[in-house]
Amino acid sequence: MNAIAERKGSGLTRRLAEQARTLTFAAIPGETRAWARQCILDTIACGIAGASDELTEILLAEMVEQGGHPGAAVYGHAERLPAAAAALVNGAAAHALDFDDVNLAMPGHPSVAILPALLALAEERDSSGADVLTAFVAGYELECRVGRVLAPGHYDVLGFHSTATIGSFGAAAACAHLLGLDQEQFVAALGIAGTQAAGLKSMFGTMCKPLHAGKASYHGLMGAKLAMRGFTSRADVLECQQGFASTHSPDFHPDRALETPMHGWYMRSNLFKYHAACYMVHSSIEAARKLREQFGVTPDRVEQIRVSLEESCDRICNIPAPRTGLEAKFSLRLATAMGLSGIDTGRLSTYSEAVATDPGLVRLRDKVDLDFKTGIPNTFAEIDLLLTDGTRLSASHDAGMASDDTEGQGRRLEEKFAGLVEPVLGSNRCAELISRIGEFEMLPDLRELMALTGR
Amino acid sequence: MNAIAERKGSGLTRRLAEQARTLTFAAIPGETRAWARQCILDTIACGIAGASDELTEILLAEMVEQGGHPGAAVYGHAERLPAAAAALVNGAAAHALDFDDVNLAMPGHPSVAILPALLALAEERDSSGADVLTAFVAGYELECRVGRVLAPGHYDVLGFHSTATIGSFGAAAACAHLLGLDQEQFVAALGIAGTQAAGLKSMFGTMCKPLHAGKASYHGLMGAKLAMRGFTSRADVLECQQGFASTHSPDFHPDRALETPMHGWYMRSNLFKYHAACYMVHSSIEAARKLREQFGVTPDRVEQIRVSLEESCDRICNIPAPRTGLEAKFSLRLATAMGLSGIDTGRLSTYSEAVATDPGLVRLRDKVDLDFKTGIPNTFAEIDLLLTDGTRLSASHDAGMASDDTEGQGRRLEEKFAGLVEPVLGSNRCAELISRIGEFEMLPDLRELMALTGR
Repeated sequence: MNAIAERKGSGLTRRLAEQARTLTFAAIPGETRAWARQCILDTIACGIAGASDELTEILLAEMVEQGGHPGAAVYGHAERLPAAAAALVNGAAAHALDFDDVNLAMPGHPSVAILPALLALAEERDSSGADVLTAFVAGYELECRVGRVLAPGHYDVLGFHSTATIGSFGAAAACAHLLGLDQEQFVAALGIAGTQAAGLKSMFGTMCKPLHAGKASYHGLMGAKLAMRGFTSRADVLECQQGFASTHSPDFHPDRALETPMHGWYMRSNLFKYHAACYMVHSSIEAARKLREQFGVTPDRVEQIRVSLEESCDRICNIPAPRTGLEAKFSLRLATAMGLSGIDTGRLSTYSEAVATDPGLVRLRDKVDLDFKTGIPNTFAEIDLLLTDGTRLSASHDAGMASDDTEGQGRRLEEKFAGLVEPVLGSNRCAELISRIGEFEMLPDLRELMALTGR
Repeated sequence: MNAIAERKGSGLTRRLAEQARTLTFAAIPGETRAWARQCILDTIACGIAGASDELTEILLAEMVEQGGHPGAAVYGHAERLPAAAAALVNGAAAHALDFDDVNLAMPGHPSVAILPALLALAEERDSSGADVLTAFVAGYELECRVGRVLAPGHYDVLGFHSTATIGSFGAAAACAHLLGLDQEQFVAALGIAGTQAAGLKSMFGTMCKPLHAGKASYHGLMGAKLAMRGFTSRADVLECQQGFASTHSPDFHPDRALETPMHGWYMRSNLFKYHAACYMVHSSIEAARKLREQFGVTPDRVEQIRVSLEESCDRICNIPAPRTGLEAKFSLRLATAMGLSGIDTGRLSTYSEAVATDPGLVRLRDKVDLDFKTGIPNTFAEIDLLLTDGTRLSASHDAGMASDDTEGQGRRLEEKFAGLVEPVLGSNRCAELISRIGEFEMLPDLRELMALTGR
């Protein structure tokens, strides 16, 4: 073995490209295909709901001023844009509410970095649903592998926004797969996207955070298209000296690219968000829902409520008596009361002043005692109830664990989809979108589906 | 002073923005304005010469496919593009030959990161020459200050390509100045551009290196335009926790932003490249030219030639007997012979097989002895000649030192411009461009000038 071959991570970029490039539709199990459809459903829902956000409107106005061939739909809008511009706008829209899916391997938002580019490119090129689904899975898996290789320092220590940075590699791989690039072009696509990959975590709380998601999609699309046209790059962007890994992470674990994730696919550990509130209140809502659904608990029968949580939740989302819709999203007590009362916590409009100050909810909210602990995940909550008849009940939930019920997850995502999309596009269009995405891999092309996502 | 105000670099981004934003045309001395015109002249020359490079053609084809409002000219081409797309293509074109100007404070290529965006934006908005020149100087100075704050670790140790990264800040500042942004918008423009700034030095030698220059321009233009539309970002992108500095450099010297450069302007230390060859052979050519011009030395009178250089030049550009035009660019011996013979080393077509193997040049080349030393700059060369009549002559040059002869520099840049532009656009167009750029600050708008740069 010579000196170059011995260098840590030698051949990593090529191996990852080879693995993504050679993925076939037939090699993807039916269960994983179902998860891929769910990711597509959820990302489109978030994009349509985020289409009227101010940041999306600003980006759209700029892109419309620039103009171009109207090859791709814009979620929730009548305008059409070139695929690259649509990827940018739709990516930002789908991350505007921070309601889109998560993968802790990345760690970040895996689908929003890829799908806006992939769907726009597919629409422009008349690609089939099966080809798009395969490319999506290829990009998703590569993205999680790259994330694992650079974890935890890339995101945790240095402070790069993985959705933006690692996401650029995922988008490039997905678009390169759809374009059928050969191995040399494929690694060039990763290199072109990788040398443009950027995004600071310190931008959280500004419009730049959703912009990052759009940029990941944009870079991936441009990387793949330029590579197809013969644009050159290095074939070892991740592992080379002063390459992406050495400049962007104190951690570099190339062997992790060979790990086999749970159920064989990183996509199977995808986490969906069902509540339009802080992620740290999700488990309290879920545990409260279980008590309501499994034991028929109703608010009038509740005497005392104790919620056990990890102590960091106290600093993140413990507004004791919220007055506005925004404050309601960061109130563990109110969230628990909403869950027990069967309020639809997935609808954006739920988080209003009226709900925050509703007398019945406030009464229930004031019965909640929070018990903060150490040594448990901050995505975990356990609720112990004392009912007026003296009965004691308890339930727990960990929002950091992926579902083991694919069908149930699908039903909940369709409910979430309806909650987000009906107010924008109406119930007929909403139902039609759910139906088409449900048969995604049978679609001969995406033209009609994507037209339905616009106005 | 509270804890936040005490943090290292507190207020840095705002201070840099304030300084750039409030620069007026009247505050720029005539000598510095002359240097700004020279930077504009040189960058446009490099852009027109790089317009037919393969990488430019690929980017242009992609952008033409995307289409859009034809607001801005493309150097050396008949197509017109939206300003953002033109900034990307023209930026890559002007860096394709690596023949554009340099500033060691950055360290990188200062003008190519800014001007393609600024000129395209100005063309689209009918800005005046004086406004563009002021915005250019504002961006250029900010860019060098940011470079100084992060030096040397950003470029030298980690391996970020400063032209791409630091250049994004310069382009944002220039475009923000031209758009007349207020202070809050101005710092947002720096934030939006800064969180997108990217580019790996390891990409040198691939088409991604010139792409980086185009991306810097693109990010600056987009950052300023989005900020003008109300897009939000942090106001402390450089110095905040997990901000640009902490993620992108082991060095952070905010106080250097207050330093006053030589002659009061970083632009006055701009370095122009006059020879279409490796930068490490420039001093040998320049010293040889001095011997020819000052002492009337002709090749037939030369008996022996000794060139003293820093030892790293031996590894970079010491091909003893080059056979091709490309090899000729990396041959200290041949470069010295070319300088003594009065060959036009600024023309791209000079570096041919015919020149590399010309019998007269080869005879002279074989009289050159190289003497490598330590402890001198690698941009320095000293030539000692022994003539056939026994006379000894010597001359030296340091290509790392800025000129102290603004007029002489201007004449040489016009010669370089002609050498690069005439073969593409013809001598009439070339002369007209030189004339208009010579009166840049009197131009009411840039429409005619920019139209002349296209085909």
